Amino acid sequence: MIRLAVTGAKGRMGRAVLAQARRLGEWEVAGAIDQGDALEPALLRSDVAIDFSSHAFSTVVAEASAAAGKPLVIGTTGHLPEELLRVRRAAERIPIVRAPNFSTGVNLLFYLVRKAAAVLGEGFDPEIVEAHHREKRDAPSGTARRLAEIVAEVRGISLEKAARYGREGEPGPRKAEEIGIHAIRAGQIVGLHTVLFAGSGEVLELTHRAETRDTFALGSLRAARWVVGKPPGMYSMEDVLGLVERE
Amino acid sequence: MIRLAVTGAKGRMGRAVLAQARRLGEWEVAGAIDQGDALEPALLRSDVAIDFSSHAFSTVVAEASAAAGKPLVIGTTGHLPEELLRVRRAAERIPIVRAPNFSTGVNLLFYLVRKAAAVLGEGFDPEIVEAHHREKRDAPSGTARRLAEIVAEVRGISLEKAARYGREGEPGPRKAEEIGIHAIRAGQIVGLHTVLFAGSGEVLELTHRAETRDTFALGSLRAARWVVGKPPGMYSMEDVLGLVERE
Amino acid sequence: MIRLAVTGAKGRMGRAVLAQARRLGEWEVAGAIDQGDALEPALLRSDVAIDFSSHAFSTVVAEASAAAGKPLVIGTTGHLPEELLRVRRAAERIPIVRAPNFSTGVNLLFYLVRKAAAVLGEGFDPEIVEAHHREKRDAPSGTARRLAEIVAEVRGISLEKAARYGREGEPGPRKAEEIGIHAIRAGQIVGLHTVLFAGSGEVLELTHRAETRDTFALGSLRAARWVVGKPPGMYSMEDVLGLVERE
Amino acid sequence: MIRLAVTGAKGRMGRAVLAQARRLGEWEVAGAIDQGDALEPALLRSDVAIDFSSHAFSTVVAEASAAAGKPLVIGTTGHLPEELLRVRRAAERIPIVRAPNFSTGVNLLFYLVRKAAAVLGEGFDPEIVEAHHREKRDAPSGTARRLAEIVAEVRGISLEKAARYGREGEPGPRKAEEIGIHAIRAGQIVGLHTVLFAGSGEVLELTHRAETRDTFALGSLRAARWVVGKPPGMYSMEDVLGLVERE
Repeated sequence: MIRLAVTGAKGRMGRAVLAQARRLGEWEVAGAIDQGDALEPALLRSDVAIDFSSHAFSTVVAEASAAAGKPLVIGTTGHLPEELLRVRRAAERIPIVRAPNFSTGVNLLFYLVRKAAAVLGEGFDPEIVEAHHREKRDAPSGTARRLAEIVAEVRGISLEKAARYGREGEPGPRKAEEIGIHAIRAGQIVGLHTVLFAGSGEVLELTHRAETRDTFALGSLRAARWVVGKPPGMYSMEDVLGLVERE
Repeated sequence: MIRLAVTGAKGRMGRAVLAQARRLGEWEVAGAIDQGDALEPALLRSDVAIDFSSHAFSTVVAEASAAAGKPLVIGTTGHLPEELLRVRRAAERIPIVRAPNFSTGVNLLFYLVRKAAAVLGEGFDPEIVEAHHREKRDAPSGTARRLAEIVAEVRGISLEKAARYGREGEPGPRKAEEIGIHAIRAGQIVGLHTVLFAGSGEVLELTHRAETRDTFALGSLRAARWVVGKPPGMYSMEDVLGLVERE
Repeated sequence: MIRLAVTGAKGRMGRAVLAQARRLGEWEVAGAIDQGDALEPALLRSDVAIDFSSHAFSTVVAEASAAAGKPLVIGTTGHLPEELLRVRRAAERIPIVRAPNFSTGVNLLFYLVRKAAAVLGEGFDPEIVEAHHREKRDAPSGTARRLAEIVAEVRGISLEKAARYGREGEPGPRKAEEIGIHAIRAGQIVGLHTVLFAGSGEVLELTHRAETRDTFALGSLRAARWVVGKPPGMYSMEDVLGLVERE
Repeated sequence: MIRLAVTGAKGRMGRAVLAQARRLGEWEVAGAIDQGDALEPALLRSDVAIDFSSHAFSTVVAEASAAAGKPLVIGTTGHLPEELLRVRRAAERIPIVRAPNFSTGVNLLFYLVRKAAAVLGEGFDPEIVEAHHREKRDAPSGTARRLAEIVAEVRGISLEKAARYGREGEPGPRKAEEIGIHAIRAGQIVGLHTVLFAGSGEVLELTHRAETRDTFALGSLRAARWVVGKPPGMYSMEDVLGLVERE
């Protein structure tokens, strides 16, 4: 049995992780923590923690995990640069998996988009469409932002300059370096991401559709199982799935 | 034989209309006019004109057609309020078909979206995605704007307040009255429009995909054939296709 | 409180209906019946029954409901002609809503497809694609079959002759009257239906995506609420939603 | 200038290749051949040939090219096993590129599907949907068949056993090894291919959409330019695009 602490336990994702951990045989829930609860004792009686709280509390969890010497999985997105720095510093002492999305399919999508952007090159225009439920507060999703970053990295350009979050009026012809990012908010859509590359007379579209939040919960548990016993460092879900080579 | 004048004859759509008119048996091209060419003589020797010029020149064509007593089909979009007023005044003397899009499928889409918005009501969130080639200068397309207007009309709200042309940062939960409109620009895409309605656990998506510009050219010729002999007034492509009842 | 009996209570849909009925305030579950349980007493202590059993048992339920004088909602599909006749005979004595699909969106889709098929006519080729989870035993879905029937009715042809359930080898050019029906089975897909109409240079696609089974359960409860107090007869979900006029 | 012979010159693809070759600066059309025309002289005065004839004539072209010592690009599909053997024997003497589809996007799709099938494994069900215009005589397309073969190869199963070209009646639950292949025929669709992988609560969809036949014509010319000067052997478009390593 692996002893698990969950932070952000009352949120949508925290509850999904706890439900799956209780359903599966190999987990023992040693702590279900929200802001206000005592963090350190829960971490100390656990083998690993999964965080789905908020970017601010998540940073506190990273530092407390480092102090306790316990590995951590972070599913929270939207960290400020200063917070990210503190998380990275914690990762010098413990292994941390940080991912905007824990589904196998999305992480494979990251890999495929990197390959497609490299092969297709400048002649194909990339655009990203994502869709989520009406309650989602931020836009675009962390996953969409990561997809755009991957395309920008392959093209050797800065996402800040390339990203285009909407078009209205008379923007004129599309600039070659643009990466359009479109955030649909509607109904109860769990999560959809499409990256399209349109060239001369042809379009390639790579789409991932999450149907239930269980996909993400199971993925974060897979990451938690994987990270126990790893050396300190920052890892991604692509590491967990064996999709990248580390030298 | 119907004698046809085309204004905006050297543009992408003007050339497509001329090519189709020459290919079909029933048309005689009596004038292929661009800015600088003499407009009145061409209108006088024609039975009907099709305009794919610019919103400014299009207004001039409408007034000249009214003076010449000749029916007109306008495919140009983006008229300023003052220009639109002048076009409407011309339509008191001649019949004018004005449409953002002449394909049968898109005009049927207008009809279906109106019906869907009415039946689905407030519990379903509408969002519109359109995609066009990288050279298109305006956004969103006239067709996407018309689709959004239809939804706004059915809901009894103002499009100016409801339209949302992009989401970035922390917009917070979606407002019920929002109509998201997303303009993709990429490659050589001829024209794609999707209207989605997302409710509790279900999504309805209505999509039109134009594969060649010939679709639009043939539709404008169908409108030109229809408008000859009609009483003065402003007509839409839905009138031409018999999709609306006029009292 | 409306007293409700559910037949096929242990199936996937039966359980979903019971869960929703217990969650909502207005229902009292008066019977949860499977084959082997006593049917008549449960019907007698209820105001209405919802059936998600099997085509064979469903026929028995219809006759027992008629004997008990209680209205009925049938969600089961796949009735043999002889069974359908017996259901119709029961509907001479009680009101029965029978629908292959209870979601608002799918029933609106039925309406929109009827309209689209009528307007587009012979120049557009219709094809239907549906997708469901890997456990689904029949193909195509009752909903896909109904969509195909609607297109065939509008075109005045027999679905038996027009339906084409797969293409392999050298079928030669498509026949004008064909209606292609393609059943995808994969993963845990709850239910997807697309009807496409492809013409000269343009394609219209109407798609419904069910995200959770609750959509169907809630729709069947809406039908049950509606059918109480109606005169005898066979009704469809389009009647319940007010999408059709009955003369 | 590269001297080019085209066989199957009067077909849809043959004409598209000739039009592009005449438009671009680097090609000289040295022969436009159909069945009945003299083949050998045209091959002898060319540097390379592109074949879009028929599987039978294509085999003759391969043998004549080998006799003339000239490289060859074959775009024809549907070769019988015996014909394929003769083509392979010709490839012992000259370099032959043979591909079911010459677009960059489709060949990248082959690569991405291979990777996705390998990473996703048995928990994800693969299904393929393709759509082509109403005149296409064979089904599924050579490209769809190749996509299915790639999935079957990765899974170590025989496509003959795994392929499922339609579902109707009561097929029962999906078998894990099945690969569904669905051929839509409608309107003037140039070419659409989708491979979907559906797992537990998530779906990955990889789609290629060809918008004009020029994409294929330009790709075959790219292959012809590449194959000149290569050692004898059978090559694929993935070789031309540098997507595979040959040891």
